[in-house]
Amino acid sequence: MDLRQLSTPGAVVDLDRLERNAAWMANRAKDLGVSLRPHVKTHKCVEAANLQTGGLSRKITVSTLAEARAFATAGFDDITYAVPLSPDKIPACAQLQKQTRTFHVLLDQPETMVALEGYGAAHGLQFSVFLKVDCGLHRAGVDPASPEAVALAGRLHRSNQLDFRGILTHAGQSYRCRNRSEAAAVAAHERDVMVTFAATLRGEGLAVAEISIGSTPTITAADRLPGISEVRPGNYLFFDAFQTAIGSCSVDGVAFSVLTTVIGVYPDGRRLVVDAGALALSKDPGPTHVDPDCGFGVVVSERDCRPVSGLKVTSLAQEHGVMHSDGPLDPAWRPGTRFRILPNHSCLAAACFDTFSVVRGTELVDQWHPVRGW
Amino acid sequence: MDLRQLSTPGAVVDLDRLERNAAWMANRAKDLGVSLRPHVKTHKCVEAANLQTGGLSRKITVSTLAEARAFATAGFDDITYAVPLSPDKIPACAQLQKQTRTFHVLLDQPETMVALEGYGAAHGLQFSVFLKVDCGLHRAGVDPASPEAVALAGRLHRSNQLDFRGILTHAGQSYRCRNRSEAAAVAAHERDVMVTFAATLRGEGLAVAEISIGSTPTITAADRLPGISEVRPGNYLFFDAFQTAIGSCSVDGVAFSVLTTVIGVYPDGRRLVVDAGALALSKDPGPTHVDPDCGFGVVVSERDCRPVSGLKVTSLAQEHGVMHSDGPLDPAWRPGTRFRILPNHSCLAAACFDTFSVVRGTELVDQWHPVRGW
Repeated sequence: MDLRQLSTPGAVVDLDRLERNAAWMANRAKDLGVSLRPHVKTHKCVEAANLQTGGLSRKITVSTLAEARAFATAGFDDITYAVPLSPDKIPACAQLQKQTRTFHVLLDQPETMVALEGYGAAHGLQFSVFLKVDCGLHRAGVDPASPEAVALAGRLHRSNQLDFRGILTHAGQSYRCRNRSEAAAVAAHERDVMVTFAATLRGEGLAVAEISIGSTPTITAADRLPGISEVRPGNYLFFDAFQTAIGSCSVDGVAFSVLTTVIGVYPDGRRLVVDAGALALSKDPGPTHVDPDCGFGVVVSERDCRPVSGLKVTSLAQEHGVMHSDGPLDPAWRPGTRFRILPNHSCLAAACFDTFSVVRGTELVDQWHPVRGW
Repeated sequence: MDLRQLSTPGAVVDLDRLERNAAWMANRAKDLGVSLRPHVKTHKCVEAANLQTGGLSRKITVSTLAEARAFATAGFDDITYAVPLSPDKIPACAQLQKQTRTFHVLLDQPETMVALEGYGAAHGLQFSVFLKVDCGLHRAGVDPASPEAVALAGRLHRSNQLDFRGILTHAGQSYRCRNRSEAAAVAAHERDVMVTFAATLRGEGLAVAEISIGSTPTITAADRLPGISEVRPGNYLFFDAFQTAIGSCSVDGVAFSVLTTVIGVYPDGRRLVVDAGALALSKDPGPTHVDPDCGFGVVVSERDCRPVSGLKVTSLAQEHGVMHSDGPLDPAWRPGTRFRILPNHSCLAAACFDTFSVVRGTELVDQWHPVRGW
């Protein structure tokens, strides 16, 4: 079956590019001397995670308990749930801990620690825990310069119910970078903050087995990561228009696209309307800090994914995508003409679909079904 | 079962409010002397559409063929597919036409008309067609002042394979209004454009059985709609933070919310992190033209949906929602505290969920499963 036979809007995964991205990051981790624990939240597919882990079904990062359950069922046995735990989710984590060889949670709230400890004591369980650290994003995590951070690590370390695995951060501020050298600076900062904090903890007699960092921009750009034990990038497997804009990859590295059909041609307005709207691309605004007029993704040709010069997705309604051309419309663009769009943010666009059509070139070779919900 | 037992993030439908909104719009259409063909794209649930149509299972508007198939299977027998048809979707529409008493499509492209006519001739089918009109949104539709618009209506009218039902528009520019009186002006314009265009067509001897208009802001605000035969609002059943900002409804009219749990409390930053991120709320930026700092929805209390003063959803990552308070954090906000968020755009937020928990007050009374995909 060929790409041409797929209905639109549709999610397309380019398997050649995916394999290239997977191998590239595996080698990169090896070169940097760190262990790779890829995040699966971008694709949420077992098949893709198998490529990321070299078929070992080990060491992944998840963003939801639904992902954790699905990947545990598929045999992945060393999983980090990388969103800070809240007390209500402890019973579900206990279940996952029984289902896997190792299930790591993270926290930064003393109150959550007390709840986890209490649950462990009541049920005779020991939980593997990372202390979540804020290295500058100011979203979640303890301030590594604060005495409270050291105190919480000490409590984790001393608890009978908790196995203090180490410290973990995500330098999400890398998404504010404009190029690879800025991302390299964030990577160095992320590394420095964590290695310094680990030294402080070790100086207090607290063992820190793991120092886990990661985001696709920082791991792509990092020069060296001495002292770091593992990295958790995820977006790199698909990449997207955002990552091309900040220099993490080139346009021909993007492995995920949304196939779409032209439903209206309006030459007077130099406008096309396509059937990929906000429910197929998400409303992620994209790299507006690099290009305020970036629109909603990069338009490429249906069959060979070559960028279509001068054509931009300018607005999205629920089921309408509006494109404008900076010159007169190409007369070849008619109702029924198809394009692919490299979305601004593949993690959010991929979540719009229940099925990914997996292609090599234009040949459909597989269909994958991502995990949904929580 | 009570709201308290639901896991988060979760979609909650307030059935009392929903019923009130359904009855209110049904009465409004009656007062305006127009037929109501509600759009189901906001909720995509048969149960909700039954409330909108007074249990008659008739006359609905859909945004995808997947919705059309699901609602036709559930017995809805008069369906308008209100996204301009493209040639590749004709066979699916033919199937739907056989499955329903009446299935209306819309088009604005001569080329699509020719394809539809050709398919009809080859398969012995007649299609019910609306001419899509642009009344100022400049997304899709013919320019009603152009000779091409009259010519296309004439071709539709004369075709043996096509039953020209009338003209249809959507004044989506109403979403740029800042209040109800501005929306009333857009409604008057929408009505005037369509009635004038119908008169032109009738002057050319072309019968125009239906004049269909509609958006929630315009139908909510319209003074009178003489000459209009039907309206197609959809969002009104749920409403959302956007509609409250432009005056379509009050906060206690919003029937859809996202239940969320606090996972982190950061007093120094006057910040909370919750477990509803971009995959639970969508990244719709909301009514920024009314309030540039509107954030990502209105935070309300878990149990009685009262607005939580001074607390705003300031940013969204995939599974993290960040809230900031304009004063010191309330000490009652702890890990595990729950809120509801009235999302900026309920159509996009609802599409994030496979299940809606339907409540009366805080009691769970039903679970609904929206249609997904295309």
